[in-house]
Amino acid sequence: MKTSIATVSINGSLEEKLKSISKMGFKGVEIFENDFLVHDLKPKEIKKIVSDYGLEISLFQPFRDFEGMPEPYRSRAFDRAKKKFDIMNELGAKTILVCSNTSNLAVGGIDRAADDFNELGEIAKNRNIFIGYEALAWGKYISDHRDAWEIVRRANHNNVGIILDSFHTLSRDINLDSIASIPKEKIFIVQIADAPKYNMDLLFWSRHFRNMPGQGDLNVLDFMQTLYNTGYDNWISLEIFNDQFRKDNRDVIAKDGYRSLINLSKKNEIVERTKIKKIEFLEFSVKKEELNIIHALFNSLGFVKVGHHKTKNIILYVFGNVKFIINAEIASNEKNGEFNPYAFGLVVDNVQSTLKRCKALKINNVKDFYLKNKFKMNLIEDNGQYIFLIDNKKWQNDFNFLDQVNQNSNLEFDHIAISVEHSTLLSSVLFYKSLFECKKISNTDIIDPSGIIKSHVIENKSKTFKIVINSAENNETLTSQLRKKKYISNIQHIALRTDDIFKLSKKFNELGLKTLKISDNYYDDIDAKFGLETNILKKIKENNILYDEDSDGSFFQIYTTLINNSFFFEFLQRNKSYDGYGANNAIFRISAQKKLIYGCHT
Amino acid sequence: MKTSIATVSINGSLEEKLKSISKMGFKGVEIFENDFLVHDLKPKEIKKIVSDYGLEISLFQPFRDFEGMPEPYRSRAFDRAKKKFDIMNELGAKTILVCSNTSNLAVGGIDRAADDFNELGEIAKNRNIFIGYEALAWGKYISDHRDAWEIVRRANHNNVGIILDSFHTLSRDINLDSIASIPKEKIFIVQIADAPKYNMDLLFWSRHFRNMPGQGDLNVLDFMQTLYNTGYDNWISLEIFNDQFRKDNRDVIAKDGYRSLINLSKKNEIVERTKIKKIEFLEFSVKKEELNIIHALFNSLGFVKVGHHKTKNIILYVFGNVKFIINAEIASNEKNGEFNPYAFGLVVDNVQSTLKRCKALKINNVKDFYLKNKFKMNLIEDNGQYIFLIDNKKWQNDFNFLDQVNQNSNLEFDHIAISVEHSTLLSSVLFYKSLFECKKISNTDIIDPSGIIKSHVIENKSKTFKIVINSAENNETLTSQLRKKKYISNIQHIALRTDDIFKLSKKFNELGLKTLKISDNYYDDIDAKFGLETNILKKIKENNILYDEDSDGSFFQIYTTLINNSFFFEFLQRNKSYDGYGANNAIFRISAQKKLIYGCHT
Repeated sequence: MKTSIATVSINGSLEEKLKSISKMGFKGVEIFENDFLVHDLKPKEIKKIVSDYGLEISLFQPFRDFEGMPEPYRSRAFDRAKKKFDIMNELGAKTILVCSNTSNLAVGGIDRAADDFNELGEIAKNRNIFIGYEALAWGKYISDHRDAWEIVRRANHNNVGIILDSFHTLSRDINLDSIASIPKEKIFIVQIADAPKYNMDLLFWSRHFRNMPGQGDLNVLDFMQTLYNTGYDNWISLEIFNDQFRKDNRDVIAKDGYRSLINLSKKNEIVERTKIKKIEFLEFSVKKEELNIIHALFNSLGFVKVGHHKTKNIILYVFGNVKFIINAEIASNEKNGEFNPYAFGLVVDNVQSTLKRCKALKINNVKDFYLKNKFKMNLIEDNGQYIFLIDNKKWQNDFNFLDQVNQNSNLEFDHIAISVEHSTLLSSVLFYKSLFECKKISNTDIIDPSGIIKSHVIENKSKTFKIVINSAENNETLTSQLRKKKYISNIQHIALRTDDIFKLSKKFNELGLKTLKISDNYYDDIDAKFGLETNILKKIKENNILYDEDSDGSFFQIYTTLINNSFFFEFLQRNKSYDGYGANNAIFRISAQKKLIYGCHT
Repeated sequence: MKTSIATVSINGSLEEKLKSISKMGFKGVEIFENDFLVHDLKPKEIKKIVSDYGLEISLFQPFRDFEGMPEPYRSRAFDRAKKKFDIMNELGAKTILVCSNTSNLAVGGIDRAADDFNELGEIAKNRNIFIGYEALAWGKYISDHRDAWEIVRRANHNNVGIILDSFHTLSRDINLDSIASIPKEKIFIVQIADAPKYNMDLLFWSRHFRNMPGQGDLNVLDFMQTLYNTGYDNWISLEIFNDQFRKDNRDVIAKDGYRSLINLSKKNEIVERTKIKKIEFLEFSVKKEELNIIHALFNSLGFVKVGHHKTKNIILYVFGNVKFIINAEIASNEKNGEFNPYAFGLVVDNVQSTLKRCKALKINNVKDFYLKNKFKMNLIEDNGQYIFLIDNKKWQNDFNFLDQVNQNSNLEFDHIAISVEHSTLLSSVLFYKSLFECKKISNTDIIDPSGIIKSHVIENKSKTFKIVINSAENNETLTSQLRKKKYISNIQHIALRTDDIFKLSKKFNELGLKTLKISDNYYDDIDAKFGLETNILKKIKENNILYDEDSDGSFFQIYTTLINNSFFFEFLQRNKSYDGYGANNAIFRISAQKKLIYGCHT
């Protein structure tokens, strides 16, 4: 793939942008005109900088309000174009983007526009410039790539082609088949952007909310597939206007951009995304001197010690199908050794091909992790998340097993929730979507008394892997508060699924587990809302069980109190086809947990 | 006015919210149900807390998906209502908000809904509860207050009335006259909210972007006027869903809310907004030992010393109609004494009535300002902005004047730009709009290489007072960088208007003023864009003059370099009816200034 990105997609000075773009692996760069105009250097000098960074200028843009103008504006537009063509030659830019006219002065008409482009094509030809015409979704007369293509077809000039932009096409739900009928050599460049599915003014949406392919909700994959069917193999270029990206770390944005393009590669160009079979285990770090207290905690959660590492101070606990590993070998410094879940093990189709894909996506394959790679497992890392990749049960060979305990339980991993910095939320979504076969299935705002928590849910098709990615802008929200300790990882909430919440709750009572106290007012509301049977209501209230239901089924949840002031467990039961995460209950869980931190309502 | 605010409008725990709401002067509070449900205290205990804070519960809300339901949902909805009514009685809440049904299960029909409300009215009557029905702008069948009113009219029950919400009515452009035909006693409560004029999904807009009346673009003033015409004199209650407010300082939000309500008072309830005649002067602080260098600077800007304070070390400079005062009496600590513009003097219609309005709006009247009130002038302060209020020329009596210099110049104040924290941007807009007769005339995004600058322009009708309020979320933007020194005030940019920019430019050359160097590439672009005459282009390029034009006229700008790394001057000329601020040139000015700070392109 010929990867390219527009300078407007990241922040900084032109040099800073070029440096970052080059470093992250792009081959081409679109020069957004203002980035060049504000510069003191002459076009020729900038040309040299671009080429010193090993980059090619894929596009010079934008050129506005050109086609369909009446005189004297028409002549002026041609004069303007000539001057820009001359500068492009000095700059070393071959292709210019002309976007469809938005001026109220424009007259419209397909033939008039085609004539304008034919005439401009002749001028461009003499200067060795190529003109790409793009339909802005909010253009005055031309807002659909099919109309832009008709103009280009009638302009009938070798130096005039079309520019496609996934946002302009997908935001208007234009039939993608129409792309397949454009000859590939008439597509001068393709711009790619995704966006969350908002129903708003197209210009406003485009200018503020675009994001990297895979971070939003548009069907960029289908767009690319149709494009590939034309045989197109020229630049694929990111053009991302995003308020958040304008202030975030440019290297992170550029890396995500590069990753998002690799994720759009043609079939067979890189190894496919990996299928996750299941979560195999969750691993905790612990200090040696805390092993006893953690043992007591795990026992109260119903977990039983089943094995011990043959040579190291690492212990395996099991409850039903859930395995917890505690690792007392990590105490290289105090914080890292503190009790905390820091990684999970995923059973995948093929570890080696997953690692190949990691390499292509610039995801770290941790070779010399300071925790030491005790089980000879492959560990990958991204944005402070650690994942062990496993394709068989060999890792258990390192353990001596105690007599197997029959727990008679179907406990399973339901989901894991992580908490990330607001600025890396989309980055984390892209990490999972680009490496694994999984989808973002929802995007919810959770109300914390101190602000909004953005919560993205990612699942694989069989729902054996579900991860919730939370972030908040406000540092007083619970999700941010718990992150304050800055442990190795960002796992905050471990949700385990049972098929009998009342049996489990009874067991917890016997084991003496302290569950999270929920307010009486909550249960009055549940009563009013759902009209539960009196004995069920009594039982859930007595046992701090939260309840939800929708048209698909019902849902029970028990939370533990906060552990080490940084994470907690949830035990849940899904009845019938209830598929949610109890979002309505989140504010009650959060309020109750905040009381534990502050000792009072906050 | 019976002032009220919904708990959902500010962040924190219920107690924190009530405390802030009470402190800022509200008499009533809407209890948003979740704020109460998450609480451990019983309804009766919360009732006591509310009353201890001197507050009355104006409304309990929301009650959803009630009217027009088929069985068995209808019965369940009635059961749910009964339980809520009982809780309301314990809580001491008299009125409940029922919002129009959004459930797909609802059947619709005006008469069916009216019957439901009549029946619910009877239940409510027995429990001494009043039911207010509100049309959500996105309700399934009822999305218009006129339809809600028809249902209430047909329900024909003393305990059933309508609730109006300015957002739901104004967001759908519903004719306001329809409000005037509702009997005032049938309006149980009025909710008020403003919002920026965005074209987007109504629910999304409402949930994320509402703001305080006067901070947005909706015609809340007309809404209130029509409401007052009905004779309504019950609660006016803020119900503001805003992502930013959910994380900002709750006292600031609550104060702005209170101010926004006072600003909506009936005519004659408080003194009217003040008319600004003009900006009289700008005052700078300076250290004594720097007086000489500042004198040199002012001279290079064309200013001439014309007077000296009779008893203090305060000097008056004049250029045309622009007066600068430098005050060397402020050095109570080092920072405050540093050279910086810290206040401006406004000539207003009537100082005493302005001060009365300040009091009602909770704007500080600075009595014992640490700078000392040298001219016996009245000084007001809000959000770190200082304004002297003047209604005559008496202040000049404190000065001895030198022989008057004939400068033969028409230099005028054009505008002053201030830079505020992102979280106080809307607060600053409201400050000006609520105290003075002025309007927000535009709201622009300026692109800084490090992020977006939100720029709101406020003007009075005669355009003798214009202020630009800038803020950015990213601290690397120029506007944030210049604010780093945290001077007394936040004045960052002083724009003075001439009627002959070339004459002025020549004068600056003679005086040796260093103007801000603009890139050559900029002038190539201006050439391509506007096709200026060659000699004009040459002249503006040689003199670092920026150019803009629109259909109304043309515009010239000269900037100084940065002064004390914290502010700068602009000299501008407006031709014909050019009314803008050269927003297209801002990125060039910003880039050039950033080079001065960092010594290179950033």
